[in-house]
Amino acid sequence: MSRYDPSVRSHRAVLTFEIPTRIGFVNITPRVEEALAESGVREGLCLVCPMHITASVFVNDDEQGLLRDFERFFEELVPHGPRSRYRHNETGEDNGDAHIKRQLMGREVVLAVTGGRLDFGPWEQVFYGEWDGRRPKRVLVKIIGE
Amino acid sequence: MSRYDPSVRSHRAVLTFEIPTRIGFVNITPRVEEALAESGVREGLCLVCPMHITASVFVNDDEQGLLRDFERFFEELVPHGPRSRYRHNETGEDNGDAHIKRQLMGREVVLAVTGGRLDFGPWEQVFYGEWDGRRPKRVLVKIIGE
Amino acid sequence: MSRYDPSVRSHRAVLTFEIPTRIGFVNITPRVEEALAESGVREGLCLVCPMHITASVFVNDDEQGLLRDFERFFEELVPHGPRSRYRHNETGEDNGDAHIKRQLMGREVVLAVTGGRLDFGPWEQVFYGEWDGRRPKRVLVKIIGE
Repeated sequence: MSRYDPSVRSHRAVLTFEIPTRIGFVNITPRVEEALAESGVREGLCLVCPMHITASVFVNDDEQGLLRDFERFFEELVPHGPRSRYRHNETGEDNGDAHIKRQLMGREVVLAVTGGRLDFGPWEQVFYGEWDGRRPKRVLVKIIGE
Repeated sequence: MSRYDPSVRSHRAVLTFEIPTRIGFVNITPRVEEALAESGVREGLCLVCPMHITASVFVNDDEQGLLRDFERFFEELVPHGPRSRYRHNETGEDNGDAHIKRQLMGREVVLAVTGGRLDFGPWEQVFYGEWDGRRPKRVLVKIIGE
Repeated sequence: MSRYDPSVRSHRAVLTFEIPTRIGFVNITPRVEEALAESGVREGLCLVCPMHITASVFVNDDEQGLLRDFERFFEELVPHGPRSRYRHNETGEDNGDAHIKRQLMGREVVLAVTGGRLDFGPWEQVFYGEWDGRRPKRVLVKIIGE
């Protein structure tokens, strides 16, 4: 019964974030690390993605100036208004821009897990990126490995 | 022999799409769900990606106004013509723009599989995004898990 | 002892690249294929990502004109200068633009592995994309499967 059994193992966690502004970025690395510790996975892959379509998960630097650069850049490229700018807003929504911003920034990240840790370079941090906030939103963490 | 054996399991499916216009978006969620059902995987990850370099697979909302917003936004940001705009077109191609659009929209999605289903929020749908259509193209679905 | 044992298997490799210019693209497909051969994985998923936050890994066409189109397009959309354009540069860095370009081009790719090979269409090639070069940078390859 002591035979080493490298059977596949999976784990699921859901994190909830409520950003008080329309656009905002939160470093969620500690929360993803917690989910990974709970999983017991030593070697594998860790998917982190929003369960919503106006949000992004991405990996970049935790530097406040950069986060403001992201906000300014994407707002200039895909302005929120006027509301009539987007056909999607004819449905009664006002977040047509947020759906496009999320595509440009990206939906998800897949992270390597090595020795039970996120296998990151020195500056890599995982962020939740909100493009249409002021309500609670969920982020799914799914880990698979051994 | 009744011992539970959570050995790793994988499945591959190829879907083919022919979009009658240069640019177009198709909700392929039912096709991905079929592949997942065939796989028998209960817990794992599902990669969905085009086997072509002028197409995207992405997750967003199945709303016609939004899909038109995507088309207009990307065509304005990366215009198809004039043909001389792109060095790539000197090869005889006329799809330099399509290669860039695919990078901005994204290549692939990785989806969580939980309890044998795509682990989606209420509005998430998987799309095939075509940037250089009018010919058959393939989408690969690769599922791994237990 | 001849029982087929499809237990989960994982492999990690790190590749290093030093691009002599600020921006540059290198086809790293042969290097990823080597890592895959070493892994012994036959069916699974292969994550390829930079361990840095001003670089991208992406799949596209190995055509020199296209690579120049990528450089020109992203430099026009997210100009490197003037330095004061980006708040991030107030930290003493001059690579604010590179962090944004990496988000637009994408961070990582997840590739399907089938029969021990990268499961690619005829034109798909994996690239390392550098947005802030002239120093050595690492790319992580993590493979999981059976």
